[in-house]
Amino acid sequence: MNGAEVLTATLTQGGVDTVFMNPGTTELDLVDTFTSVPGMRCVLTLFEGVASGAADGFGRIAGYPAATLLHLGPGLANAAANFHNARRARTPVISIVGEHTRAHQPLDPPLASDIAGIAKTHSKFVEAITSSDQICTAVATALATATTAPKGVATLLFPADLAWEPSRQSGEHLAASRSWTPDTEALKRAATALVRPGAVIFAGGDALRKPALNELAKLCSRGAQIFAETFPAVHERGGNLPRISRLPYLPEQAIALLERATALILIGTPQPISFFGYRGTPSILTPSGCEIIEVVPPGFPCLGAIEALAEEAGLSDPYLPPVPTEPMLQAQQSHLDAVGLASAIASSIESGTIVVDEANTGGVALQGPTSDSPEHIWLTVPGGSIGEGIPLAIGAALAEPNSRVLALVADGSSLYTIQGLWTIARERLPVTVVILNNLRYAILQYEASRRSPVTEELRKLTSLDSPAINYRKLAEGFGIKADVAHTPFELLQQLHGAALRPEPVLIEAELF
Amino acid sequence: MNGAEVLTATLTQGGVDTVFMNPGTTELDLVDTFTSVPGMRCVLTLFEGVASGAADGFGRIAGYPAATLLHLGPGLANAAANFHNARRARTPVISIVGEHTRAHQPLDPPLASDIAGIAKTHSKFVEAITSSDQICTAVATALATATTAPKGVATLLFPADLAWEPSRQSGEHLAASRSWTPDTEALKRAATALVRPGAVIFAGGDALRKPALNELAKLCSRGAQIFAETFPAVHERGGNLPRISRLPYLPEQAIALLERATALILIGTPQPISFFGYRGTPSILTPSGCEIIEVVPPGFPCLGAIEALAEEAGLSDPYLPPVPTEPMLQAQQSHLDAVGLASAIASSIESGTIVVDEANTGGVALQGPTSDSPEHIWLTVPGGSIGEGIPLAIGAALAEPNSRVLALVADGSSLYTIQGLWTIARERLPVTVVILNNLRYAILQYEASRRSPVTEELRKLTSLDSPAINYRKLAEGFGIKADVAHTPFELLQQLHGAALRPEPVLIEAELF
Repeated sequence: MNGAEVLTATLTQGGVDTVFMNPGTTELDLVDTFTSVPGMRCVLTLFEGVASGAADGFGRIAGYPAATLLHLGPGLANAAANFHNARRARTPVISIVGEHTRAHQPLDPPLASDIAGIAKTHSKFVEAITSSDQICTAVATALATATTAPKGVATLLFPADLAWEPSRQSGEHLAASRSWTPDTEALKRAATALVRPGAVIFAGGDALRKPALNELAKLCSRGAQIFAETFPAVHERGGNLPRISRLPYLPEQAIALLERATALILIGTPQPISFFGYRGTPSILTPSGCEIIEVVPPGFPCLGAIEALAEEAGLSDPYLPPVPTEPMLQAQQSHLDAVGLASAIASSIESGTIVVDEANTGGVALQGPTSDSPEHIWLTVPGGSIGEGIPLAIGAALAEPNSRVLALVADGSSLYTIQGLWTIARERLPVTVVILNNLRYAILQYEASRRSPVTEELRKLTSLDSPAINYRKLAEGFGIKADVAHTPFELLQQLHGAALRPEPVLIEAELF
Repeated sequence: MNGAEVLTATLTQGGVDTVFMNPGTTELDLVDTFTSVPGMRCVLTLFEGVASGAADGFGRIAGYPAATLLHLGPGLANAAANFHNARRARTPVISIVGEHTRAHQPLDPPLASDIAGIAKTHSKFVEAITSSDQICTAVATALATATTAPKGVATLLFPADLAWEPSRQSGEHLAASRSWTPDTEALKRAATALVRPGAVIFAGGDALRKPALNELAKLCSRGAQIFAETFPAVHERGGNLPRISRLPYLPEQAIALLERATALILIGTPQPISFFGYRGTPSILTPSGCEIIEVVPPGFPCLGAIEALAEEAGLSDPYLPPVPTEPMLQAQQSHLDAVGLASAIASSIESGTIVVDEANTGGVALQGPTSDSPEHIWLTVPGGSIGEGIPLAIGAALAEPNSRVLALVADGSSLYTIQGLWTIARERLPVTVVILNNLRYAILQYEASRRSPVTEELRKLTSLDSPAINYRKLAEGFGIKADVAHTPFELLQQLHGAALRPEPVLIEAELF
């Protein structure tokens, strides 16, 4: 076997079956080998940030890692923002970055740079492979590290000449390590706190996945409040699943909700802090006397700990779902706003829909109405780096081909990775992209207004109306059919129409 | 003064008058301050790679740095690929990256990451400002470092709370250091070599700028060959300027041209190496016995050293420009190919045109015909990270508002930073973008074919025809008028038409 074959064989034995790529000259032998593996899906993207965001979406839904194949340092740099999101989502990803041949590296060719330096900022594991006898072990270690809690991005630098050089190693697989148990002392403290007034549970990670949700709900049966982390990687919700509200983004709102908390029990998420630091507003959202008890650290498995905690606290009442209400859609509403949009979206969600939420300010009303929708999966952008909505949809759709993906993407966010639409078209993915067009970076105008009146200059520099962008033309330019919705009813009709067809659709929702 | 005011005052005193920005919440106070400075041009981009590439283009043409204002680590990561190009072009840039408030940083908020770790991979200077008394000195040092040879990117991390905190410092300016003289011993060796058979001059940096070109040409008056570096940051050419061919990209061609070299004299560029390492092809392009003499290291001023070298070698014959030939345009040609495209481009270049060359394989025939065009400025992508053509055009157009910019951008390259078209439209820049559409990553198919026959799978994974992208719709979606050229004559007519109007135009050149 040559090095490229050892690399792919080790990945295949580790279960990797999908590679998102934007290769260059240094990766061509790897492309040849990947395409020769039966069952390996090679997905071309036009920009590396699409590949990394797609791998994040794939890993979240599939539960096992996709690989990415990128070209040298600049290729990795372009992917880094969405790898940052994958890092915060704790998604397993195997990131393979081509490197110059070993003989060429010391000459400092134009495309040379410190690839490992970039990778370290978002990776749990980075290894620069330097000999053919190292490939299998490096790949197996990367797979084991990426899939061991807390999961993450494992990066391998692969010099071009190793692809064609013979290797004495063959593919082997190291198992992920899963031996984690909750701290008994923390469990006891949490069990005591849970039955006292002012107990609040703050849950994230796989506590928000279906297997854990009913157990989690039991913990509230003596009156403890519960919140989900603000930007969960995956939140299963709707239907008969327990309703767990996400803690609001705005610190004032979160502080008000937590002001009576005497104990905060952390299950799979860090303690709640504000997204940004503000003048005159505390960054820590819990009151000063509140006891913080970490039962499950971020990224570790939650179900066993939740069951142990329920038992320790003697809480066994099953969760009783409320009777869902029909979402209210004002058919006569002539204008699309956040509430009308939320009603239409909620009415359109079907059982099994995967919702990608990069809706930002335009999505402010989504949480309530959609909790009454049939059971669905909700993905957000945990790292806060905008430009992941379209890529996440690609990865989710490939991981779960039987579900329709509904990607709600703010106008500003969509323009970071708009070329992802082409990969959606090329792969003919069942994705509906809704662009929430309010002609501005509304979050920035809102954040600015929190400090002082927004100046005309700042308003202009955060507006997307000069010229206004025609998202329909962008979609058609990339090969996707597009509609424009001006009213909630129009939006709902278009969403229903899209769901009836296998192909992708883009809908521009005019929120202005 | 508050910290934001000290920052902007120091930049203004250092001559900075243009900021390319894609700000977030942590940079809003800086946006307010920048927009309050009279004469400061604030340019919004939809993606950070557009901002960094525009700053590169601006710095190359203006000769002094623009600033960029980016949002935290992910914002910088998105900008890093084009900062890599700026690093290789040795362009002065001041990169300001917002950081969380100092109190917020230790809490590891979602958007936190190792900003300095990313910055170090492309910056000459990185400083994380941590106190208000440090701002002025840090900015002045960044300016001095960025503009001292070899020039480069200087990065400042600016915590949000420093913007509003009072600072005792006021703006001050440190001068760039310019005290460099060539090594006398190297000059003597080069002077001796220059008059011997097999002498080759390899020139780059500001040796390719107008003031140095005639002096450089004198060095060849006893038969020395001369080549320009393959991807120069700025090459002034055409008209009566000395003709200096760029060394070919393909190593086989470069090796053939250099095979009789006995001495290679380096003026402002590193020794010629191949762009990539290949199996069975040497990375070093000069023959093994060739003496390498570095007269001016990369990034240092060349003119004085060239004059000293001419004097030392006793070479004073002035350069006699050849009689230019009229570019041949086959008006009857019914199909657009690389030769027809080159003729049309060469015929359309006017005196003062700034050509941005990210044409890649479609531009393979450009060099010859355009050397007969009126005097113009040619920019390439020295770092090899594709996706800089559109951004470079933005920066160049803002730096030189009286020139038309002609950006020749390969289809694949254009799609990395296609949202840059919106900034061109918004700023109403006199830019003509020509998309060289050959429906594929032709360079990859060519590079692959050098190794072995291209497999059908690899061909598919490097093709952009499924679906074909409609560049006209993309341009119109971003607010730019667009044409499609099917023949050289049509292309020339459209180029002429574009040059008559002040507004931007995109032309899709169909090379298939």
